[in-house]
Amino acid sequence: MVDTVSVAEYMVQVGRQARAASRVLVAASTKVKNDALHAMAHELDTAREALAAENAKDLAAGRANGLDAALLDRLALKPATIDGMIEGLQQVAALPDPCGEITDMSYRPSGIQVGKMRMPLGVVGIIYESRPNVTIDAASLCLKSGNAAILRGGSEAIHSNRAIADCIARGLSAVGLPETCVQVVQTTDRAAVGALITMPEFVDVIVPRGGKGLIERISSEASVPVIKHLDGICHVYIDAKADLDKAFAIALNAKTHRYGVCNAMETLLVDAAVAKAILPRLADAFSAEGVELRGCDKTCAIISATAASDEDWATEYLAPVLSIKVVESLEEAMDHIARYSSQHTEAIVTEDYSRGRRFITEVDSSSVMINASTRFADGFEYGLGAEIGISTDKIHARGPVGLEGLTSQKWIVFGDGQIRH
Amino acid sequence: MVDTVSVAEYMVQVGRQARAASRVLVAASTKVKNDALHAMAHELDTAREALAAENAKDLAAGRANGLDAALLDRLALKPATIDGMIEGLQQVAALPDPCGEITDMSYRPSGIQVGKMRMPLGVVGIIYESRPNVTIDAASLCLKSGNAAILRGGSEAIHSNRAIADCIARGLSAVGLPETCVQVVQTTDRAAVGALITMPEFVDVIVPRGGKGLIERISSEASVPVIKHLDGICHVYIDAKADLDKAFAIALNAKTHRYGVCNAMETLLVDAAVAKAILPRLADAFSAEGVELRGCDKTCAIISATAASDEDWATEYLAPVLSIKVVESLEEAMDHIARYSSQHTEAIVTEDYSRGRRFITEVDSSSVMINASTRFADGFEYGLGAEIGISTDKIHARGPVGLEGLTSQKWIVFGDGQIRH
Repeated sequence: MVDTVSVAEYMVQVGRQARAASRVLVAASTKVKNDALHAMAHELDTAREALAAENAKDLAAGRANGLDAALLDRLALKPATIDGMIEGLQQVAALPDPCGEITDMSYRPSGIQVGKMRMPLGVVGIIYESRPNVTIDAASLCLKSGNAAILRGGSEAIHSNRAIADCIARGLSAVGLPETCVQVVQTTDRAAVGALITMPEFVDVIVPRGGKGLIERISSEASVPVIKHLDGICHVYIDAKADLDKAFAIALNAKTHRYGVCNAMETLLVDAAVAKAILPRLADAFSAEGVELRGCDKTCAIISATAASDEDWATEYLAPVLSIKVVESLEEAMDHIARYSSQHTEAIVTEDYSRGRRFITEVDSSSVMINASTRFADGFEYGLGAEIGISTDKIHARGPVGLEGLTSQKWIVFGDGQIRH
Repeated sequence: MVDTVSVAEYMVQVGRQARAASRVLVAASTKVKNDALHAMAHELDTAREALAAENAKDLAAGRANGLDAALLDRLALKPATIDGMIEGLQQVAALPDPCGEITDMSYRPSGIQVGKMRMPLGVVGIIYESRPNVTIDAASLCLKSGNAAILRGGSEAIHSNRAIADCIARGLSAVGLPETCVQVVQTTDRAAVGALITMPEFVDVIVPRGGKGLIERISSEASVPVIKHLDGICHVYIDAKADLDKAFAIALNAKTHRYGVCNAMETLLVDAAVAKAILPRLADAFSAEGVELRGCDKTCAIISATAASDEDWATEYLAPVLSIKVVESLEEAMDHIARYSSQHTEAIVTEDYSRGRRFITEVDSSSVMINASTRFADGFEYGLGAEIGISTDKIHARGPVGLEGLTSQKWIVFGDGQIRH
């Protein structure tokens, strides 16, 4: 089909089918949706050989195209990867269904009863890169939240994604849901992405997952709302009244637990009152972990570090590199965060009630913490069960986005014949 | 200033000042914000003469430019208009402050306590047409919700808006808040709008208020999120199991209470089982009110109406015109709504529990009602106290948007030194 009609026409057809399927899903019971998730898990389990064969085609093509080892590793559907996909489906089936929740019902003077009902967004488009297991993650979260999904994976995983899509389709059919509830885009033509992000009549939200370049391009070209984050320039501020043992453990964990993640600390702010007491101890520990330190003048006067440039404060290293700044006050720390943070996650370490309260109230990031590592900013750690992504935007959902972030609330009114006077 | 630097530079300065002011507002107490609202009310009350003089300049210019009587009426700041503005300020001061609300705090297995805190969006840009009283409405809602505001009124009201802006600035100063918390754009150059809607670094959301043309233009050109609705193509469906007296009253009220409003009914759907019983009675009543009827074939076979075209189903008349369609089932009614509705407000009239439940669950509009007039879809009627606008989008806020819609929720984490393992 993709060969005989234009990509634009194909995507309109995909969009139209998704919109129609979303009307079926909004009326689907929780049981049917859960049954579909379990049926998909069963299909994956029984299709292990076919999945391996299709994945082998992608891996061979990847090798031929010179993909590096890390990319090939992400592309590989090992038995453990398939086990993980099956477990993920079962976990999403076990989560509460957010749809239909009715809240805040109250009677108004007119006699009408007004409240809100939680509702799927409708159609969610997911654009992602090489990992084929995202196909199952995204499909399961969209289905459970009552949304039709259009999934556009990377061209390097097309055979794997098509094989997974077959399992998803058989799982949907097994419970009587239309196969169009989850559609994997069947063409690798990049024009399909351009079409997907500019069809607001068929697509309600786009979630891009991948490198910053992909997300920037999609955000700037989309006419459909995008749930996204670009950077994770996260800060830990060690306040003058910090418990220095907690500060040491949190700063070390926030930087060194994992380097390539968006909730890792990139800049450490230290109050001048405790800088001499904590920085040498931290410098030794970071040095033992092989972390390169870049500091402001005051930092460099206390520990051995290279001089940080203005660019350092604005950089997400995603690597064993840390910039350190000594500040004179909570205000200076919050000013620095307001200027350089990507509004992902910031933490203060303090035992002072009023300073902690100010930090948590005034810092405008999607996660703000007292005495905890920034590494906790994660859908699983927050109890969402799963996350489709993290948003650093302020409209709609902020921070880790789970099932609830794939829904919105409409107003509902129960009357008894009321008219307006 | 506007004369000596470019409009773009001026708007960047306005944006930068708004962003800085938003950091002050996020930390401002409820009392300070309420005191500012009361101080603004006092300033308006003592500036009645100055307001009248400046408004007279706008009215004179409007007459010279050939504005029609309706526009001149909307432009006029009569004593009653100023009374209304003062009362509005006092009402907003009396509303609960949405900021700082903490919800859903729970402990996680790691020992961290996670929840959400409600937070201003930051900087809100409002773009509106001739009514100068919107300046006060918008300023008060933004201030109460902790947002800095950038207000861009119509050029025909520039003298009135500047005079109102002076009152707002004096009210802010009186309580020690920066005057930049509410900025009225001082230039009538249209390039200022273009700049305002493409500064995501300084502006978090745009709320356009005005005609459909203005809103469409802003939506298509903005790189900042827009809270908006374009059309109000609202439906009332009279089900086979409707109480026909309620149906009669609701259909009549939804159409004839006011014609030029977005929550007025534009299309009436009638189940074939009751069409002959209710349509003649309704046709008489509509005819007595001077409402022109346009019907499907089945409708025209029962009552006197002109034949409706496909375009009629997709038209927001905002006038004494009503399209009527006879449907064979609830499904056909919901299909028609899914195809033609602008997702503003739909109502079913029924005594049947299961059909009412299906309608309220499956219809994907910002307000969905059982046995009540669509005219209730309104921030005041819903108990929001005031509304900045109505959204038919699904991301962020749906339906009437009040103070809460001008906020979002960030995640907060209270720890005791926890690190991630």
